[in-house]
Amino acid sequence: MKNVLTWIIQEEQFAPEQMQYYETIFTLGNGYLGTRGTLEENYRLRKPGTYIAGLFDEAPNEVTELPNAPDWVSIELELAGERFDLEKGNILAYQRSLDLKQGILRRDLRWESPQGRITKLSYQRFVSMKDQHLMGIRVSITPENYNGTIKVVSVLNGQVTNEGTQHFKAVEECTFGERGIYLINETYQSEHILAMAASHQVKGKLINENFFNRRRLVGYQAQLAGETDQTLIFDKLVTIYTSRDLDGPVPATHLEKMEKVKALALGENLGAAIQGFDTHLAAHVQAWADLWLKADILIEGDDFAQKAIRFANFHLIQMAPKHDYRVSIAAKGLTGEGYRGHVFWDTEIFMLPFFIYTFPEVARNLLMYRYHTLPGALKKAKENGYEGAMYAWESADTGEETTPKYGGLDLKTRKPVRIWCGELEQHISADVPYAVWHYYQATGDWDFLVNYGAEIICQTARFWASRAEYAPEDDCYEINNVMGPDEYSEFVNNNYFTNAMAQWTLRKGLEVYALLEEKGKAEALTAKIGLKKEELANWRIVAEKMRLRRINDLVLLQFDGFLQQKEVDLSAYRHNPDAFFKDFSWEQITSTQVLKQPDVIMLLYLLGDQYTLEEKIANWEFYEPKTLHHSSLGPAIHAVFATEIGQNEAAYRYFLDAAEIDLNNKLRNSEAGLHAATQGGIWQAVVNGFGGVRLKDGGLQIAPSLPEHWKKVSFHLIYQAVPLRITVTNEQVELEVLVKEFRPLTIGLCGRTITLTPEQASLRVPMPKAGLS
Amino acid sequence: MKNVLTWIIQEEQFAPEQMQYYETIFTLGNGYLGTRGTLEENYRLRKPGTYIAGLFDEAPNEVTELPNAPDWVSIELELAGERFDLEKGNILAYQRSLDLKQGILRRDLRWESPQGRITKLSYQRFVSMKDQHLMGIRVSITPENYNGTIKVVSVLNGQVTNEGTQHFKAVEECTFGERGIYLINETYQSEHILAMAASHQVKGKLINENFFNRRRLVGYQAQLAGETDQTLIFDKLVTIYTSRDLDGPVPATHLEKMEKVKALALGENLGAAIQGFDTHLAAHVQAWADLWLKADILIEGDDFAQKAIRFANFHLIQMAPKHDYRVSIAAKGLTGEGYRGHVFWDTEIFMLPFFIYTFPEVARNLLMYRYHTLPGALKKAKENGYEGAMYAWESADTGEETTPKYGGLDLKTRKPVRIWCGELEQHISADVPYAVWHYYQATGDWDFLVNYGAEIICQTARFWASRAEYAPEDDCYEINNVMGPDEYSEFVNNNYFTNAMAQWTLRKGLEVYALLEEKGKAEALTAKIGLKKEELANWRIVAEKMRLRRINDLVLLQFDGFLQQKEVDLSAYRHNPDAFFKDFSWEQITSTQVLKQPDVIMLLYLLGDQYTLEEKIANWEFYEPKTLHHSSLGPAIHAVFATEIGQNEAAYRYFLDAAEIDLNNKLRNSEAGLHAATQGGIWQAVVNGFGGVRLKDGGLQIAPSLPEHWKKVSFHLIYQAVPLRITVTNEQVELEVLVKEFRPLTIGLCGRTITLTPEQASLRVPMPKAGLS
Repeated sequence: MKNVLTWIIQEEQFAPEQMQYYETIFTLGNGYLGTRGTLEENYRLRKPGTYIAGLFDEAPNEVTELPNAPDWVSIELELAGERFDLEKGNILAYQRSLDLKQGILRRDLRWESPQGRITKLSYQRFVSMKDQHLMGIRVSITPENYNGTIKVVSVLNGQVTNEGTQHFKAVEECTFGERGIYLINETYQSEHILAMAASHQVKGKLINENFFNRRRLVGYQAQLAGETDQTLIFDKLVTIYTSRDLDGPVPATHLEKMEKVKALALGENLGAAIQGFDTHLAAHVQAWADLWLKADILIEGDDFAQKAIRFANFHLIQMAPKHDYRVSIAAKGLTGEGYRGHVFWDTEIFMLPFFIYTFPEVARNLLMYRYHTLPGALKKAKENGYEGAMYAWESADTGEETTPKYGGLDLKTRKPVRIWCGELEQHISADVPYAVWHYYQATGDWDFLVNYGAEIICQTARFWASRAEYAPEDDCYEINNVMGPDEYSEFVNNNYFTNAMAQWTLRKGLEVYALLEEKGKAEALTAKIGLKKEELANWRIVAEKMRLRRINDLVLLQFDGFLQQKEVDLSAYRHNPDAFFKDFSWEQITSTQVLKQPDVIMLLYLLGDQYTLEEKIANWEFYEPKTLHHSSLGPAIHAVFATEIGQNEAAYRYFLDAAEIDLNNKLRNSEAGLHAATQGGIWQAVVNGFGGVRLKDGGLQIAPSLPEHWKKVSFHLIYQAVPLRITVTNEQVELEVLVKEFRPLTIGLCGRTITLTPEQASLRVPMPKAGLS
Repeated sequence: MKNVLTWIIQEEQFAPEQMQYYETIFTLGNGYLGTRGTLEENYRLRKPGTYIAGLFDEAPNEVTELPNAPDWVSIELELAGERFDLEKGNILAYQRSLDLKQGILRRDLRWESPQGRITKLSYQRFVSMKDQHLMGIRVSITPENYNGTIKVVSVLNGQVTNEGTQHFKAVEECTFGERGIYLINETYQSEHILAMAASHQVKGKLINENFFNRRRLVGYQAQLAGETDQTLIFDKLVTIYTSRDLDGPVPATHLEKMEKVKALALGENLGAAIQGFDTHLAAHVQAWADLWLKADILIEGDDFAQKAIRFANFHLIQMAPKHDYRVSIAAKGLTGEGYRGHVFWDTEIFMLPFFIYTFPEVARNLLMYRYHTLPGALKKAKENGYEGAMYAWESADTGEETTPKYGGLDLKTRKPVRIWCGELEQHISADVPYAVWHYYQATGDWDFLVNYGAEIICQTARFWASRAEYAPEDDCYEINNVMGPDEYSEFVNNNYFTNAMAQWTLRKGLEVYALLEEKGKAEALTAKIGLKKEELANWRIVAEKMRLRRINDLVLLQFDGFLQQKEVDLSAYRHNPDAFFKDFSWEQITSTQVLKQPDVIMLLYLLGDQYTLEEKIANWEFYEPKTLHHSSLGPAIHAVFATEIGQNEAAYRYFLDAAEIDLNNKLRNSEAGLHAATQGGIWQAVVNGFGGVRLKDGGLQIAPSLPEHWKKVSFHLIYQAVPLRITVTNEQVELEVLVKEFRPLTIGLCGRTITLTPEQASLRVPMPKAGLS
């Protein structure tokens, strides 16, 4: 039973005020699209959201974003003349649950109407993991103490917006087939066509039925004969296609294109309706079963942690563009409108590790997105007077910069805060090549490196070489006027994180070039991007002479002048960042020693090889107390890092902080969408943190150290295309290869170097005593 | 007390399901803008709407419409931690009322929160009749049994749309002054700039205050110390300006234009805030008092009728563009999004009489709109291969045709119904000149006729001359392929209404031309519009030979082939038009003898002079039973017409039907906006119907016949610029001139011809016995 519950996320009581929060965490998706867990019937705070990966549109005066597609989940009920409304009457039983194992959102309830009619209602919803264009809802209705007409009204509602911004031109609202309705929409600026179709099936006595349209909306209405204790079933199967799905010969005219998209949506829907709801639900459940075989992580002795890691992996899988190498994962995935569907370093640094080691083909797609958006990055560099590729801090379909220029009102000045991240947070151009190399190291995907990855690494190295400024007085290179990961510090010089990551990129550029040269592949790249020998020599010099200042022997200086900033005692604000914003204006905040999120610590995690344990501990002691964690990115990274320096209690505390961000709405902003990076961070906290997994010196190292009360952790890793299972208990660590044929694999396990071969495909070593707190 | 109640429209109980209906009928406006009577706090069905006269925008793939401006009425309350929500807790007392006399929307209630806190709340709202850019809301909050923090959150919310269509680009959301917030928006297509500002004043102990913005939204939040039995007051004064309000030198740049509009809104708001809520409310109330002196109609002996005529006049005044001759009144005024703010014949034929005789300067503005949109009408004629002015059936800012091509789904075929009104309902081009002449006759406004009206009349005469087709076999002119007022009959030939009104227009063209010639004014017009003598000769011939068929000596034939259409017994459908639409497809409906609304009867009313009483009675007996009245236009016209043929009981029944359309939501569609034509029709039913007012043979005729139970009716008429008061009782009719100096006035009163002079400025005649049923 306990095991079952760790697969279930529940809303125990109907919580109308938390409606938008539950919509986010109950989002269903399949990488192609995501649909918020919006209730079928309307409420004051109901905020439906369906977002299609890669389908961007740019409204005048706004940054491009993922348009909110028409609401397909809307189903209103009228039970013997009374509208079904959980805010009225009495709720006799209620349970809404997201089944992580099967990918089903269920709602089961008994409701007594204001006039005393009792009805049992059961809802099931899926967004097919088998067929990315298909979704379904089943409503089961059982009158318990009355006979009467049950009216069901199902609509496709294109009146929804992105907080008031409408991206779609309404083209058509009509009916098809026996009980089908459909909408055709087209985005205003990007001219993507979207076709959405819904068919309906009814089990029960149909009294009459009807179709209707209103502006941007089309609906089907059925009146059924409700009888005591007889269950009526209403199925709605929905298909969605867009012009992005078209392949083959390009249609001659726009109208033909539209007809083609429409034919896809209606055609598939007609077929799906014949096969029926059960068939598609079963295929969807099977698809999830197959995914969990690869992705599930077992944690024994900590049900909350068990649930948290499953929740994290579930959502990461739902966001994964397994079908499309032209898109990446947004900061909120496809769960809400926060950050407008834009892609940040969140993908490469926080989420990518999960995919590299679990679904490497998805990781490849995610990096291919950065390859396909190189033109945008080249353009941004050029516009700013630099060479190579300067990636956008916020990236959408073209790779051009899409960070909005202004944010919320400064509570002190009452004016909107200027957002400088798009201009200043340049470390993204080191984070991307870092991720490319990480993927290559772990997978050995030479094809990717040669054809795509090397180009990303060399173009970003090129950028940094042009970006660094020579300071003749010290014969060194500086990078001035940037923002590091800590976004409370704008226009800083020589942010250690940025400089060190730039240095890493330059060196990796040289290394990759040498590797290509060795394999006779350098010339093609040199020709393609016009790389010159002098440039390579310059990379070496800039990397060599990069300004990297320290506060003392051990502690790295976050940026020039950091120590001159005002110190603030954070104890009062740690659990109430809002108070911090009331007490300090934005201008004041940017001149304190307060960190929004890890900066130096982040570097020490990413480039852990280059720093000693002593350095890591010293920097933790200096920077950890200064970090407000007014970002969802920090806690999980602090958790991993704490395990590295033997602070398992702190690690566990930070792990809980991360897990609670969405599961308990800790930052009180989950309604705008899930913190996708946090989910990736939770995976890292478990696998890289407590599981102790690292790629060091080019090799896989595993050195687990579990929280004291954890009894067992078991997870999967795909390394060099070989699937492994690692099972950790307090006594031993077991390593198994899950395929029969593979090339011998050398791995560091708890300090020993072991080699797995087809003859010895599994191994156990005792858990070392040291390192556990 | 009774008298007071006839000034008040009430929602006696909080009716959340009828919310949108009350929003419509509680609309406040001043001709410059209208704001629906939307509650301050949010509910599921809340649909805020603010529409600015003449501010049109055309979204791609849609017809141009009045954009829904940001919601300025939003004010949320949190009472000691509990959100004020009438759907929760207990309502101990409730009354919402529209004060027609003062133009104030009030809400007074006592509410017990779910946790037992009782609060007395009182809301007052006005849209200033004094200053068209100013609006205000006052909230008075009295905790009755608790102390605690009262949180008030006031926003300007630009996330609203027109049923999903967003017309505004969000330009700026910021703060100003001490407690001010503002928004700058710009329409996407028409590039109108809109600035909306709100300032706040608080009476009570302010604990703290705060400003915030979100996408398209800006807000102010105050926390007040609530104490038992102490009343806190929160005032919100709002100003709105648009770039349509700019005059003087045109700003050099778009930015300067924007700054100017912003400066107007913020500048006026700062001043208004200093003067305070009470000052502006008092000025507003005084402005209404002045208006009612001219517009009130007294009905004794029938409180419902009294209330209905006040409601009608109130809303007609609120819709009147007294400030602007570039706009007219939409079919829903400024009360909702039905018909998208478009102007129909509703204005000229149904509403205009109220203005002609009550506010002739507004009537002139309304007709000037038709003058200013002549270019659109000339264009439409040209595009269709005709000459002169072919007015748009639905008209917006340019006068071009804006009728949507498709409407709701045909319940039988499940496909959208093609709307042909824009192509076929050509009688609008006779309705407009008819109104021009009506205005001229009643006012004697020669300046208008010479400079504007004559051009409209001649250009439409020209249109009809080119539109009529010669039928050599009968040596006559036909008008084929049209739709008359009865919109159930598409593509008909020789619609009697259209042909007769076209004939009237041609003849009036000749008459006006002769009049101008007589006064030496014809040449200027001839030169301006290139009118040729041959054309005039042709008008005479076409008018002379116009095809006008009859069924028999007395009954006019609605159109060719009418008698061959299927007869339907309407008795089952008269009170349930929806059932009619379920039983017949649109195609079937268009081939029945069922009329949507009066067609021949409409003609017999408009051109009453030309037909005998015998003819009128015969046509009534033939067509009345065939009329479904699935339109809000018919009942009032039937009421007037019935008085003309001595059927006062039927007249009263139809008058009630008309009055109930909006007051009792009889057509169940008032949520989309008030039936403005119906309000004009109600005025006509009282003044032209029971009051018996007609313009006959160029002179004013008054022959009242009241419903039996009415004791007294008193109304105003401005005739030839002389204000009159007519007071009718069952015994006598009194006629008074309300000014001291005027030129002698000859009027027909109850069959006698009387002359009023400054020496004898009032007169009484006994009420004739005959004619009353």
